[in-house]
Amino acid sequence: MLTTDKLSCNILADLLVAHGVRHVVLSPGSRNAPLIVALSRRKELATQVVIDERSAGFIALGMTVQSGEPVAIVCTSGSALLNYAPAIAEAFYRCCPLIVISADRPQEWIDQDDSQTIWQQDALAPYVKRSCDLPAHTDFPNGEWVCNRLVNDLLLEALAGRKGPVHINIRIDAPLDRISDFDDGRSRVVRMVAPSVELPTAEARRIGENIASPRKVLIIVGFHEPDEKLNRALVKLARLPNVAVMTETIANLHSPLFVSRIDSTLCRMTETERIEMAPDVVITAGGALVSRFVKEWLRSLDTEVEHWHIGITHTTVDCFRHLALRVEMQPAVFLRQLASALQIHKASSDYAVRWHNLASKAAKLHEKYVDSVPWSDMSVFAYIIPHVPQRWNLHLSNGTPVRYAQLMDCSHIHRCDCNRGVSGIDGCTSTALGASSVYKDTTLLITGDMSCQYDIAALSSMIVTPRFKIIVICNGGGGIFRFISSTSSLPELDRYFAVGTRLPLRQLADGYGFSYHEASSAEELAQSFSEFIAVTDRPSILAVFTPAEESAAVLKQYFQPQ
Amino acid sequence: MLTTDKLSCNILADLLVAHGVRHVVLSPGSRNAPLIVALSRRKELATQVVIDERSAGFIALGMTVQSGEPVAIVCTSGSALLNYAPAIAEAFYRCCPLIVISADRPQEWIDQDDSQTIWQQDALAPYVKRSCDLPAHTDFPNGEWVCNRLVNDLLLEALAGRKGPVHINIRIDAPLDRISDFDDGRSRVVRMVAPSVELPTAEARRIGENIASPRKVLIIVGFHEPDEKLNRALVKLARLPNVAVMTETIANLHSPLFVSRIDSTLCRMTETERIEMAPDVVITAGGALVSRFVKEWLRSLDTEVEHWHIGITHTTVDCFRHLALRVEMQPAVFLRQLASALQIHKASSDYAVRWHNLASKAAKLHEKYVDSVPWSDMSVFAYIIPHVPQRWNLHLSNGTPVRYAQLMDCSHIHRCDCNRGVSGIDGCTSTALGASSVYKDTTLLITGDMSCQYDIAALSSMIVTPRFKIIVICNGGGGIFRFISSTSSLPELDRYFAVGTRLPLRQLADGYGFSYHEASSAEELAQSFSEFIAVTDRPSILAVFTPAEESAAVLKQYFQPQ
Repeated sequence: MLTTDKLSCNILADLLVAHGVRHVVLSPGSRNAPLIVALSRRKELATQVVIDERSAGFIALGMTVQSGEPVAIVCTSGSALLNYAPAIAEAFYRCCPLIVISADRPQEWIDQDDSQTIWQQDALAPYVKRSCDLPAHTDFPNGEWVCNRLVNDLLLEALAGRKGPVHINIRIDAPLDRISDFDDGRSRVVRMVAPSVELPTAEARRIGENIASPRKVLIIVGFHEPDEKLNRALVKLARLPNVAVMTETIANLHSPLFVSRIDSTLCRMTETERIEMAPDVVITAGGALVSRFVKEWLRSLDTEVEHWHIGITHTTVDCFRHLALRVEMQPAVFLRQLASALQIHKASSDYAVRWHNLASKAAKLHEKYVDSVPWSDMSVFAYIIPHVPQRWNLHLSNGTPVRYAQLMDCSHIHRCDCNRGVSGIDGCTSTALGASSVYKDTTLLITGDMSCQYDIAALSSMIVTPRFKIIVICNGGGGIFRFISSTSSLPELDRYFAVGTRLPLRQLADGYGFSYHEASSAEELAQSFSEFIAVTDRPSILAVFTPAEESAAVLKQYFQPQ
Repeated sequence: MLTTDKLSCNILADLLVAHGVRHVVLSPGSRNAPLIVALSRRKELATQVVIDERSAGFIALGMTVQSGEPVAIVCTSGSALLNYAPAIAEAFYRCCPLIVISADRPQEWIDQDDSQTIWQQDALAPYVKRSCDLPAHTDFPNGEWVCNRLVNDLLLEALAGRKGPVHINIRIDAPLDRISDFDDGRSRVVRMVAPSVELPTAEARRIGENIASPRKVLIIVGFHEPDEKLNRALVKLARLPNVAVMTETIANLHSPLFVSRIDSTLCRMTETERIEMAPDVVITAGGALVSRFVKEWLRSLDTEVEHWHIGITHTTVDCFRHLALRVEMQPAVFLRQLASALQIHKASSDYAVRWHNLASKAAKLHEKYVDSVPWSDMSVFAYIIPHVPQRWNLHLSNGTPVRYAQLMDCSHIHRCDCNRGVSGIDGCTSTALGASSVYKDTTLLITGDMSCQYDIAALSSMIVTPRFKIIVICNGGGGIFRFISSTSSLPELDRYFAVGTRLPLRQLADGYGFSYHEASSAEELAQSFSEFIAVTDRPSILAVFTPAEESAAVLKQYFQPQ
């Protein structure tokens, strides 16, 4: 095929295709022109152009989250690469295989006052699994081999074990516009066999004995992509009388047997109940927990609690200060084995039943409370969440939307996600947008006005489709700062934390081609929401205006003893 | 005073004040609440809140550029810090003393799945002069001393020698909202004496002899803040018959003796003239050069050219491949000494005169050419630049605006700046906005539609004042890609490089409270421009619509032999 004459770029294109990359997000530049030529001419690769690399990084992250596939991002030299960093950090802590590809000048021109030239090598080092630096010229002994080997290595690394981002820095020398013939698909591909890991049955039994009744076992799952096998294993475990299974909203696990509203349940428990319900063994899987209640409760326990974490981790994470066991396996596999091992034990315990009673009681109190509250963030979520249509995916921004959703019953929602790797507000809209671009049904983002303002660049992306919808909770900005103790009582609250936002949503919607809806009361919300969800020819925005202080007060009151 | 109980935050506040920081840009968060309390309660510090840390970083950069003072930026933990990286890289390569202050969790909680926690220490390492990590607790022997010492060290480092950014990572433990009494101003301040550096007269004479007539000496100055002393030294040198002084637009140096339109002049020279005008010694000062013509010309010379660079550099920068001498001194001082040393030499040379003749001839051809061109980017700049009112500062974005301005006579403009440290498009608007916030007269930004779209978050900043004006050249996006050889002839040009933008300026202006003006012809421009500059009660935007391909063709033709 006719393509760039840069061999390293063509090897990269070959290997991206061979290793299963299908989506590439490109940000234009001069130095990366050969990369754009090499990649955009491959029909196997769907390419999108996004000007702002920060937004591009999060859009690619959303594509990875939604598709479960590695996605590549390509930028030019200079500070372009640094704009990827926030998305890469999120990808690293969330185990998303983003392939970062940056064009660079030849090594000899670094720090020689040429424009768009910085020290790029290893710029993302703490947040990628591995980086490599491809030379500008390959016409030396082993030149082609080293390019091929490094690209194969990095693409394998992104998907091996604990998945994560990798960074390929490609040095490219001028002239940048030369075209020549390249026999595409000729590059040697290195494959990797990742054996399915299982415990020997005897070992599973031995481990199972440790948590057989009468031991009280609490399983808690944090953020996770939908996983039928994991769901089934957990259902089996949840049927055991001494095992309770707690799932966060963004764990995407559903069963009436699970305690799925952790915060609502924990906040209703008495001091005595918190002590009595202390597990002997707590087993975690999935990502970092949203629930502060559960973390604080488990950290506070003086009793002998043994914590097992199941999953491929990059270090020893001892989030409750009770860690005793790291199980470096896929949770679905280990928990299935554990469930089987436990079937043989005669069990007698009211631990699971007691959790269910607590959860049911909390759910009733929740209903009663939200029915009574005035117009506020709480009442808005209480209305919206049950009305999210079937098959819609829901993205939640940091910080309050994910916390409000966590209080509600989300079991009917097709899929829920939130940037909880690092929990930043920086790319929530772009991430949801990226996910929407590879999901065939609607993607709904619920975000706050501060998060929305932060990532406003997302609206200008060319990849916005009519399947993308945003609800913005406009509560005057930074509602979380009115709630959390570290800032809520400071005299600096209004001027420095819960700062008013400048987010002219009506004009932005008009300018960017979104249908615009708004609501400032329960009646308006019912009306606007139904209009909002009915729009199918354009993307749409629903701005919901809530009172700031009342909303914070309603949320605080929720957690008070009733 | 009543302030946070975190000693390290209060020491920092004391020392920022003592070391001359007057402006602080804060981005709200929970972990940095004690920092915000400590800094916002100091009446000596003017604080601004900017939600988006990327924009905040560039706004602070603009403040530093304009004020010449160190400016501090403060963010919370997590990916917030990474959003600073693009501005920090620009600051590093531009020698701007930004003080980056990030809140962090205590070391023991890193990588333990707490939210907004990443590996922050040294995250900006390649782009800051130094970083330090302050412990969460100071109640250990020497705890207070080490905080004091490290903060003093970093604040001195930012301003010592080649100025540049530094990074103070402050670990802060909960509770975050405690207030206690602190005796402000009690922290020990370490001062540094930086002696004024001069050459011994004999040494200056000896160096002067190397460039005395008949040697042909070409002095080229890249970006620089306005500097009266440097200007005077250069005028003295420019009076010598064998010395020509070339200044870029953003060098902010003015004299009829200088060749100030480098590209216009060089592109008109014949091959023979380029060889004849080759200097024996080329002396550079200031930042990296915008002019590709001068770089390519000097790099191409096979003759014996000796390059001296004057200035405090962080490494050996050999941008023409002829470097022979690094003079680690302030250019104003060295060049003044050099000028004095040269006065004693009897000079005889037509080198300076020949340059002036070439420049005059080029200026005439320039006038003739721009008078003849149709409506295009070129005609727009030819109209706007001479009409920039007195006392207005001009900010130019990358990539085409700074190049067009370089072709025009900008000698009447009060001050010109552009992000040429790294030459990114990522923060041009925010930088101009930051500069405008500390300049008492008007700041005008001329930007492209792609750069404007990239940094659209700047418009939502609260610090926009009526003294801020933007002209957006809307030529369909990425005009530079239609011009530069690496991309202009690629079939991918329209889809991947000069991509159309989504920049609904009318609605954005309406939403963000800017007065809006537009022009699509020379007549409209004359009318709109006068209305645009007359607005004083609001910030204003002038959108100028030009044809993409014609504009690129007009620019290309400009550089052809006439």
